[in-house]
Amino acid sequence: MTTAGPARPTAQAWSAFRPIAPGQARITGGLWATRADRNRSAAIPTGLKQLREFKNLFNFEVAAGRAEGAAIGPIFADSDVYKWLEGAAWEYGRQPDQELLDDILEIVALLAKAQDDDGYLNSVVPVRDGGRYVDLPHHHEFYCYGHLIQAAVALNRAAGRSELLDIAIKVADHLARTFGPDLRHDVDGHPVIEMALAELYRETGEQRYLDLAQYFVDARGTGLIAGYGLPPAYFSDRVPLREQTTVEGHAVRAVYLAAGATDVAVEIHDQELLDALEVQFASMAAEKEYLTGGLGSRWEGEAFGDPFELPTDRAYAETCAAIGGVQWAWRLLLATGKPAYADQIERMLYNGILSGVSLSGDEYFYVNALQLRDRALADTERSVAHGRQGWFACACCPPNVMRTFASLEGYVATADDSGVQLHQYVPGTITAGDLGLTIATEYPWQSTVTITVESAPATETSISVRIPAWAAGATFDGAPAEPGTYATITRTWQLGDRLVLELPMEPRLTVADPRVDAVRGCVAIERGPLVYALEREDQPGAVAPDDLVLDTAAALTEQRSELLEGIVIIKASGAVVDHDAVPGGYTGQPGPEYARRDTELVAIPYHLWANRGPQPMRVWIPVQ
Amino acid sequence: MTTAGPARPTAQAWSAFRPIAPGQARITGGLWATRADRNRSAAIPTGLKQLREFKNLFNFEVAAGRAEGAAIGPIFADSDVYKWLEGAAWEYGRQPDQELLDDILEIVALLAKAQDDDGYLNSVVPVRDGGRYVDLPHHHEFYCYGHLIQAAVALNRAAGRSELLDIAIKVADHLARTFGPDLRHDVDGHPVIEMALAELYRETGEQRYLDLAQYFVDARGTGLIAGYGLPPAYFSDRVPLREQTTVEGHAVRAVYLAAGATDVAVEIHDQELLDALEVQFASMAAEKEYLTGGLGSRWEGEAFGDPFELPTDRAYAETCAAIGGVQWAWRLLLATGKPAYADQIERMLYNGILSGVSLSGDEYFYVNALQLRDRALADTERSVAHGRQGWFACACCPPNVMRTFASLEGYVATADDSGVQLHQYVPGTITAGDLGLTIATEYPWQSTVTITVESAPATETSISVRIPAWAAGATFDGAPAEPGTYATITRTWQLGDRLVLELPMEPRLTVADPRVDAVRGCVAIERGPLVYALEREDQPGAVAPDDLVLDTAAALTEQRSELLEGIVIIKASGAVVDHDAVPGGYTGQPGPEYARRDTELVAIPYHLWANRGPQPMRVWIPVQ
Repeated sequence: MTTAGPARPTAQAWSAFRPIAPGQARITGGLWATRADRNRSAAIPTGLKQLREFKNLFNFEVAAGRAEGAAIGPIFADSDVYKWLEGAAWEYGRQPDQELLDDILEIVALLAKAQDDDGYLNSVVPVRDGGRYVDLPHHHEFYCYGHLIQAAVALNRAAGRSELLDIAIKVADHLARTFGPDLRHDVDGHPVIEMALAELYRETGEQRYLDLAQYFVDARGTGLIAGYGLPPAYFSDRVPLREQTTVEGHAVRAVYLAAGATDVAVEIHDQELLDALEVQFASMAAEKEYLTGGLGSRWEGEAFGDPFELPTDRAYAETCAAIGGVQWAWRLLLATGKPAYADQIERMLYNGILSGVSLSGDEYFYVNALQLRDRALADTERSVAHGRQGWFACACCPPNVMRTFASLEGYVATADDSGVQLHQYVPGTITAGDLGLTIATEYPWQSTVTITVESAPATETSISVRIPAWAAGATFDGAPAEPGTYATITRTWQLGDRLVLELPMEPRLTVADPRVDAVRGCVAIERGPLVYALEREDQPGAVAPDDLVLDTAAALTEQRSELLEGIVIIKASGAVVDHDAVPGGYTGQPGPEYARRDTELVAIPYHLWANRGPQPMRVWIPVQ
Repeated sequence: MTTAGPARPTAQAWSAFRPIAPGQARITGGLWATRADRNRSAAIPTGLKQLREFKNLFNFEVAAGRAEGAAIGPIFADSDVYKWLEGAAWEYGRQPDQELLDDILEIVALLAKAQDDDGYLNSVVPVRDGGRYVDLPHHHEFYCYGHLIQAAVALNRAAGRSELLDIAIKVADHLARTFGPDLRHDVDGHPVIEMALAELYRETGEQRYLDLAQYFVDARGTGLIAGYGLPPAYFSDRVPLREQTTVEGHAVRAVYLAAGATDVAVEIHDQELLDALEVQFASMAAEKEYLTGGLGSRWEGEAFGDPFELPTDRAYAETCAAIGGVQWAWRLLLATGKPAYADQIERMLYNGILSGVSLSGDEYFYVNALQLRDRALADTERSVAHGRQGWFACACCPPNVMRTFASLEGYVATADDSGVQLHQYVPGTITAGDLGLTIATEYPWQSTVTITVESAPATETSISVRIPAWAAGATFDGAPAEPGTYATITRTWQLGDRLVLELPMEPRLTVADPRVDAVRGCVAIERGPLVYALEREDQPGAVAPDDLVLDTAAALTEQRSELLEGIVIIKASGAVVDHDAVPGGYTGQPGPEYARRDTELVAIPYHLWANRGPQPMRVWIPVQ
């Protein structure tokens, strides 16, 4: 049934790699299967309840004439419904289930009723906020459309059901009749419509949707959004994307726009635009991305900071931003075939995104800080000091996680004319044309990935595996493999052929660029794709992590543990510092030596912190 | 004419020290005289123009029935007028001028017309935002009253004019008839009314104003402000002030409330409250205050952060918050006589407040960051990357600076039964009873303060001088004096007696508490009361300060300079780091040695940065 995942370039598009349909890349076990199962069994059903409780669905009932009342919730309330629909659609494609489909189609039927005859669809803005398109910078109407269209494409691809696609086409046609270079010249304050229209073009073959996507990309940064009380960068509208050399402004907006622009660039063969996007991504990775893959360092404006402005305590690193980062990286990976983009997807998925969800699957962080101090005040709803929450007044992150976890299989492997490329290591099966593979691995806990050929074409075919940049000493089929490349073996494969990939997972210490003031004099512990963190309750004497220093000369040791459903913990040597005691007296001058005693430091994977209640935590540890 | 400065405890109040009237403490030269002159000649006249241009005065004309139109500007627009009036009033007291008085009285007459018969006065809320007191947490009605009352007290004290006091009394009586334990039980979202009512009590002797101030202090933190979309801490309403152990939430609100509560505590003899306020101040100083005296580390909510959360690039350190910090410290100094509070006033005045104003006197920083990175995006109006601005849409800071600079003489010295205490060192004259002193000094540039007795009582009198905590090696009248104390000499003084205070000003390196992650591995340069900073254009080769490291083993040297109207610059040794080059190759592991070459580092007083255009700057310098 499923014909492609969340991004499917056309045959004409520039595309080094082509996606494999999720149905043909299955995750059958391990960490991500567990998370996907909970996404299905806990997050998606709970999400539907929350959409009822928070009145997102009620708004549509009012719009459909089935209920009466005022529109409730944030101006973009519709989008949460659409993201839930997208998640449910991918999940249905992964494992069909009549009850889930019934839930989906019931909402779709409601949307059909709520849609205006000319295609306009929004349950909040026209009834509460002054009418159609009166305040595009703030009203999120295209943003909601974008998520609707993405859900519609998902439902069509994953379930072969076109009911929602019909609604989306009506919306898109209405948009195309209303906005454009010779019509109303305007853009929405929050991108996502660009990605959505490019995908709708791919799904339907209708050129006008790609044209409109291109128009929205090109119109941005030309001064259409000015004087709206927030700086133009907030709206990704300071300069045209082609002239931008870094990421800036509201992080989710910036990466959604960049992902959509990548879709446009590969479809229209725009090298200048693609080059600019690669430069921006590189700047982000070098200067504006957390070790966890978290994006956006400022609470104010949920924005990217200046270069190297990466505070750990006030890291915003919105779950949605890392999700958008994966979407952008995935599109650049397809376009260019560069393994660094797949490395980025791994970093974001295993750290900055996974931290956004509880082990139970149904509680969420909006913000993914890299440090929680002792005596932190749990003030705003989004503060990590509250721990993960079941839902938010601004509930963008939870259904964004749902659609991501339900479509993860789409990011595992790709194909090209020569064969198949494995990007992410999961136990499962891959089918690409006549080549069928089984993957066995306990990644990310263990280093071995075993690939078994289950079916093979009669001709020579390549099997390529990503060697992560962190994997010094990697071997593929016994031969040394260079980190930061794809290792490729080309053969005429026989059933039962077995290839072993070894990705050494010795725990390692990482330092940051010294211009990252926030972590000067600190190291982070990583192992394989996982960033580690110190959480208070694991430390001897439950010492607050802010009182610990790490001895970089001492060896790190690892240990399997039953903690948190089974992890590898890492132990380091260091000391507890008594910050109130300087033998000889504190002078305020450089070099005070605080009293300290040796101790062991115990680290767990960062993404699992706060699953035993929120507590002091830190990723970057001062060096002894 | 002038009978006291901005805070005048009654004779019954607990008061270790008593303020000296500004008219009896004159600043006749040096840095602060220059700043005060520009405050008078540039800031105050320009401010009045801005109040006209930004329509703050127009709103009152509408309210007075002299013009027609909608209320314009922020909901607290009235308060900017009142703060300007307070500044102009103190300034008039400093140096009477008919034109200035005419300007003041013209506005006062307008206010009298705009005031409702029952005393209510607000030019914005009732005509635009739904009516009187419909949304106390957000509408700032008491906040505006507070500033009105402060202005009225100032005009009465400094100029002996009671016209504005009459209006303020009508306001206060209306408030006292409307709010209270047995009336409407409620508080305003933004404190300042507490300080104002306590001062009105002091000015008029009417107990009901003190009772109302006490009521507003006690009612806070009892849950009156809940569910207003912002956390209770934002409104200083999470817990009662008596139970608070640190400062939290919106920084200006927190310190204004604390200052008002101190006024109440000393007047009603409430030891529990005073003790709690001292604990909160100590926590602020140790864990939540910038080296510059800047207060509030978060842009989000303009708030104090968690303990040790003190980022330099995103320091908020609102000019108004440091001003409020001085007001609070001054009240605690009067109450307790502890020199640490005077040290704090010095730190805030010379650094975090002074940085808020341009040398020209009429451009302002709202935010006082301690670092501006290269390639920083100048986005929001308040971003320091824009440089200082002539005015702001939210113009709280400029007139706050005006009233502070116009009343500075009030903070110089105090008296008690035994004699006089000098807290701040300025060239000028002090009169306390029969004791008259002349102070000669080039402080903060030079170390010598010469005190000459110009008139003396026949009896023994003490002259006490603050020995700043930084002043190791200080001497007073030739004898060693302990930093962090008051050095006192008691004599029967003769005309012409001369005392020399030496406060050694060798440049020094300062380190922060190691829990301040933002400045780990860094030192700051200080000299006397001044914090220094590296600004790009002063560095050899105009290297960005973020590429410099400092050698703490090498000596600091100082040099008089004609730069910026005459300063002492400090030179350090260090290196320029080439962050793109690690000889031998970058491994990502601890200890990369970047290519570097020796250089000189040139530091100027922090408060003067961005007077030659905004440019990369940093206070905390990584150690080589």
